[in-house]
Amino acid sequence: MRDITVLNEAELRASVGLDLATVAVIEDAFRALATGTVVMPPVLSMDLPAVHGEVDVKTAWIPGLDSFAIKVSPGFFDNPKIGLSSLNGLMIVFSAKTGLVEALHLDNGYLTDLRTAAAGAVAARHLAPARVVTAGVLGAGRQARLQIEAAHLVRPFTRVLVWARRPEAAAACAADLARSLGVEAHATTAETVVRDSQLVVTTTPARSPILMADWLHPGLHITAMGSDQAGKTEIEPAALARADGYFCDSVAQAAALGELRVARAAGLLADRDPPELGAVIAGTVRGRQSERDMTICDLTGTGAQDTAIATHALRTARTAGAGTIIQS
Amino acid sequence: MRDITVLNEAELRASVGLDLATVAVIEDAFRALATGTVVMPPVLSMDLPAVHGEVDVKTAWIPGLDSFAIKVSPGFFDNPKIGLSSLNGLMIVFSAKTGLVEALHLDNGYLTDLRTAAAGAVAARHLAPARVVTAGVLGAGRQARLQIEAAHLVRPFTRVLVWARRPEAAAACAADLARSLGVEAHATTAETVVRDSQLVVTTTPARSPILMADWLHPGLHITAMGSDQAGKTEIEPAALARADGYFCDSVAQAAALGELRVARAAGLLADRDPPELGAVIAGTVRGRQSERDMTICDLTGTGAQDTAIATHALRTARTAGAGTIIQS
Repeated sequence: MRDITVLNEAELRASVGLDLATVAVIEDAFRALATGTVVMPPVLSMDLPAVHGEVDVKTAWIPGLDSFAIKVSPGFFDNPKIGLSSLNGLMIVFSAKTGLVEALHLDNGYLTDLRTAAAGAVAARHLAPARVVTAGVLGAGRQARLQIEAAHLVRPFTRVLVWARRPEAAAACAADLARSLGVEAHATTAETVVRDSQLVVTTTPARSPILMADWLHPGLHITAMGSDQAGKTEIEPAALARADGYFCDSVAQAAALGELRVARAAGLLADRDPPELGAVIAGTVRGRQSERDMTICDLTGTGAQDTAIATHALRTARTAGAGTIIQS
Repeated sequence: MRDITVLNEAELRASVGLDLATVAVIEDAFRALATGTVVMPPVLSMDLPAVHGEVDVKTAWIPGLDSFAIKVSPGFFDNPKIGLSSLNGLMIVFSAKTGLVEALHLDNGYLTDLRTAAAGAVAARHLAPARVVTAGVLGAGRQARLQIEAAHLVRPFTRVLVWARRPEAAAACAADLARSLGVEAHATTAETVVRDSQLVVTTTPARSPILMADWLHPGLHITAMGSDQAGKTEIEPAALARADGYFCDSVAQAAALGELRVARAAGLLADRDPPELGAVIAGTVRGRQSERDMTICDLTGTGAQDTAIATHALRTARTAGAGTIIQS
């Protein structure tokens, strides 16, 4: 019999939030991924066309952390028809030394939202211009809001521009961000969002480009986090080739799941791998070289981020005495 | 908030055991795998040399079942030094229709032991000679005992022969089997085990052959279940080529993890895939053609078996009112 800590979504929300401590945890994971001996196998993906579903499993083992997580993310896209969320998921936390189960994070995807937003903040911290007055976002869902809130932690801009396919969704997102961040916020066209911002985050499940290379301008940073599966893409491939710096979270994943996949299919970037964000953090690769550079960061979401946030959440929750103990 | 059923090892042991009902559940999974639209992605494997560990993740979605499982199997081989088991693991059970978490089987590998033994019984039922007087086993661990107990459910032999590297382990295993099955049982050499048996199961983690082609004889069936990872092998490749029938659980897995991998590396069986056990069960492929045939079945262990046993265990446990309910 061993004790296992079970934390539900409410307990996890009370334990960890979108703040600079979380950003630091994710920053450390990126650094380890690019410089350490992180073990991160390819994502296990199971497509279930018969039930309009999919399941992804991600994991990574990071030296120096007490635990590692295995994250299971089901997406069943007929769920809303019966009043359920499409996306769910949980993380299982194992001791990094013995492989014994330590905890279950029944987070329904909350920790994924958090680590994805925190990764956006890490990219902005290391790649965006020092001075960002206007931040823009393509997409108006939960992650659009979180990405802008995360970016604001590291680049305290005063204006936000939002585009989404449905104008009413863009307006609602802008209103929410105006309220939560106390900034000016407007819905506008995708082109205006990009042309008028110094920092843009793309957060859509698009399967053809929604951000065009012609819109690029000096002093712009783009974080593209929507493409996390073969078939998805948000950025016109020419933009990646034209950028002064094009970075990614994991070369292997970007080539399989991210914008890099589409660019290579179009015959671009065949001869060079983009440097990883972790190498920029570690200082082994230069990021932005001047305020006028045009940079892009391609985030697919890594198991290293999952292990980092899961370990952080468990430590924080245990300190607070949160959770239910069950016996295996 | 949703209810999740948590079942620990003791509750699972009380709910499901090694019997013909379990064998039937696993038989159905093999049939579905070979004939249906089962979705079974490749095994996710993570090697952790820094801590002398490994983690495997298996899953499959089987049409017609209410749920599917994702199984996580950590093996941390320094654990015995601190009094812990090397092998652990759990299964997460999801609704096959919505992807919501239904249950956690904190089974510490019990359900894997069970479904692996049941698979041996399925192979014996469909491939062993109708009349088995003597059954043999190479290896003397937990799975050696379970495989012989499982085989006895479908071929009620009266004598058992056991070989293991450590003679005292073989003797203890023989004594246990004599007691549990009420049969005659002896420890002997590997060669005698094979030459004197009509049904042999190999259950070792060997990395070079322990069963030689020269030992084969008419009217023998061998189930090889030790090799479940690249690097492991128990059967001399020439034996596979020489057999009248060579079968496997999954061609893709046997080629990557099983005896087939080693045979192909030795230049054998390059031109043909072994038929799958499920096709024999379904009747689309002939298994044993005569009592004098020499047959081999190469079992690597599939996610389909995990989903089948997990779904069966959950149904049985719920009927009994077993388990703890937690809220996500």
